[in-house]
Amino acid sequence: MNNFNYYVPTKIWFGNGQISHLAELSESGKRVLLVYGGGSIKKLGIYDEAMAILGGAGLEVFEMGGVEPNPRVEKAREGIELCRANDIDMLLAIGGGSVIDTAKSIAAGVCYDGDVWDLIEDSSKIRAAKPVYTVLTLSATGSEMNKNAVLSDLGRGKKASMSSDLLKPKMSICDPTYTFTVSRRQTAAGTADMISHTFENYFSPIRDSYLSSRFSEAILKTCIKYGPVALAEPDNYEARANLMWASTNAINGIAKVGAEVGWCCHPIEHELSAYYDVTHGEGLAIIIPRWMRHILSEATAWKLAEYGRNVWDLAGDDMAVAEAAIAKTEEFFFDVLGLPRTLGEVGIGDEKIDLMAANAAPSLKNAFVPLDKDDVAEILRACL
Amino acid sequence: MNNFNYYVPTKIWFGNGQISHLAELSESGKRVLLVYGGGSIKKLGIYDEAMAILGGAGLEVFEMGGVEPNPRVEKAREGIELCRANDIDMLLAIGGGSVIDTAKSIAAGVCYDGDVWDLIEDSSKIRAAKPVYTVLTLSATGSEMNKNAVLSDLGRGKKASMSSDLLKPKMSICDPTYTFTVSRRQTAAGTADMISHTFENYFSPIRDSYLSSRFSEAILKTCIKYGPVALAEPDNYEARANLMWASTNAINGIAKVGAEVGWCCHPIEHELSAYYDVTHGEGLAIIIPRWMRHILSEATAWKLAEYGRNVWDLAGDDMAVAEAAIAKTEEFFFDVLGLPRTLGEVGIGDEKIDLMAANAAPSLKNAFVPLDKDDVAEILRACL
Repeated sequence: MNNFNYYVPTKIWFGNGQISHLAELSESGKRVLLVYGGGSIKKLGIYDEAMAILGGAGLEVFEMGGVEPNPRVEKAREGIELCRANDIDMLLAIGGGSVIDTAKSIAAGVCYDGDVWDLIEDSSKIRAAKPVYTVLTLSATGSEMNKNAVLSDLGRGKKASMSSDLLKPKMSICDPTYTFTVSRRQTAAGTADMISHTFENYFSPIRDSYLSSRFSEAILKTCIKYGPVALAEPDNYEARANLMWASTNAINGIAKVGAEVGWCCHPIEHELSAYYDVTHGEGLAIIIPRWMRHILSEATAWKLAEYGRNVWDLAGDDMAVAEAAIAKTEEFFFDVLGLPRTLGEVGIGDEKIDLMAANAAPSLKNAFVPLDKDDVAEILRACL
Repeated sequence: MNNFNYYVPTKIWFGNGQISHLAELSESGKRVLLVYGGGSIKKLGIYDEAMAILGGAGLEVFEMGGVEPNPRVEKAREGIELCRANDIDMLLAIGGGSVIDTAKSIAAGVCYDGDVWDLIEDSSKIRAAKPVYTVLTLSATGSEMNKNAVLSDLGRGKKASMSSDLLKPKMSICDPTYTFTVSRRQTAAGTADMISHTFENYFSPIRDSYLSSRFSEAILKTCIKYGPVALAEPDNYEARANLMWASTNAINGIAKVGAEVGWCCHPIEHELSAYYDVTHGEGLAIIIPRWMRHILSEATAWKLAEYGRNVWDLAGDDMAVAEAAIAKTEEFFFDVLGLPRTLGEVGIGDEKIDLMAANAAPSLKNAFVPLDKDDVAEILRACL
């Protein structure tokens, strides 16, 4: 087991009606920048409820809507200007990962004397950040309880993250009823995203971090049990609640400590998103089974077999169980969740594969199985 | 799933050599009260190493040794006086749960204008506390990452806890090598304690808190796998590390959220400890299987069967699996871990059973199966 640091100071208020705790924002000052997306929070009544609670707590609210999926650095820059012009004390993100990541980027960027993209190039430049609060409306990225913020600069074909303990939200409100209206497609993609977060450290060469592996399997089983239930019954509280809590725990550290390893499928998918604006969880679902087949060998079969036995209840020798587990994963993503099976289905051809492979490769040296650009290109061609 | 609050701000430094992070205490001031037990930390060299690091960080260290198992309120009072006399900024506990709980009680007591036992009678009186840091030397109570502090007033036959978010340690250093010298007896008792912490909320009437139940099973499997390894090979790092991390997670909240319920075996065992100064984990191991048999019915078999299937890989109908799971639990405690099987073996007769049952009963109204004093007396008589 590797030495580790575990530090997750975010206060979670989980459950139906917990939005009342927004009044606690007054701990951090008076002036709030509310960040949100395309307006669904207005349709759902969350906006009105939040404004009433914030107003009742004596907070003054400024706003920036219009954050898009795969959030753009330009929007973070706009938010930083708004904060400076209005002497903002704290950020409140109401939305999914894109909205939260934009708010985190603003929180760090407003305390930094330079362009916010610098903080992506070098997160050690994050020396201070305004407090970030979140109200989660989509179960997927886990940004509500972690230290990461992903931004895209589409003009330059870049999608990357900044990371700092200072970006961990001070408080997050996780109300599963806010996800009742999440579409089939986003529910499926979110489920693939949380599974992928779990896989990224579950597939680790560290064999003795037993408890973290069992925690990971707990999260994977939760996704596999409740993903299909949420698709069939969008307002099933039990399913939405378990998925929401699984998404948070998939990436807050609890499932990886002691076994941390370089990520693999996410860096590859980020190349797709940078060039094609594909839905992140859909890109992951396409890549993951091909990545599994690519790295399967006598040396790695033990871990894929552990996954097959403990998550899918498969039995047999390591190689047979590993192969069956990959087939189960494909079946779950493509047949059960109905996610796209190929890059072609999401409008991606082979024209940029070598470029994307070359971009992704430097991040993959410390992965479970280190990959070079030829490996990545082969994985991506298998996805076509 | 119940609504819940999850808030665990303790920073964990886990692994061999992490004691170097004690230098971070300087964040909280200059003057430290070091609290410890019988002196094993001196024999093991932890004391000297800690003093060198604290001195190097410019901290001034005051000391209170001599904390005993089942820590006494008198010792907390002594520490509070020491803090007041020396204008202490923070507490550093080096030891197991008794030492940490004493330090927490001092941290709260020094900020309270009255006797520290008042804070046990009414934890809402804890309005402030000095920062508490810990270096863990025994895997059992999980006090290194939770909000509780248990004290005993043996003169009055009382053992009870205070509880506050303010008592959550600011930082805990968890170095598994510090537990290599823990005795067979304490290793076994500590393992029973962490299993019991997990059981206290795993056995809940809430059926839909799926992820918390799977997390609980992950902890239980870890205890069952590594408890015997640590007994056979006391310096097995993998075993000691997994047990240490399991003990922390068994009671920091991660395994209970959404399914929280009134505790059952702990309140009964606290009566034994209050009158007899029995080793806590030994008392728990004696009680748990008898409690399981007492509460087993058509209404509860589903949960004991879930435990049997998911933790012990048993198969069959609910009642048969439930009964086999209880037998497995007994076998594990008594035959595998070698814990005492009866109250007689730890010097407890039937003379105080009705008194202890009457004392424990008021705490047991909100348990998985609510118990009255007759139930408790019956369970304790089955332990004789």
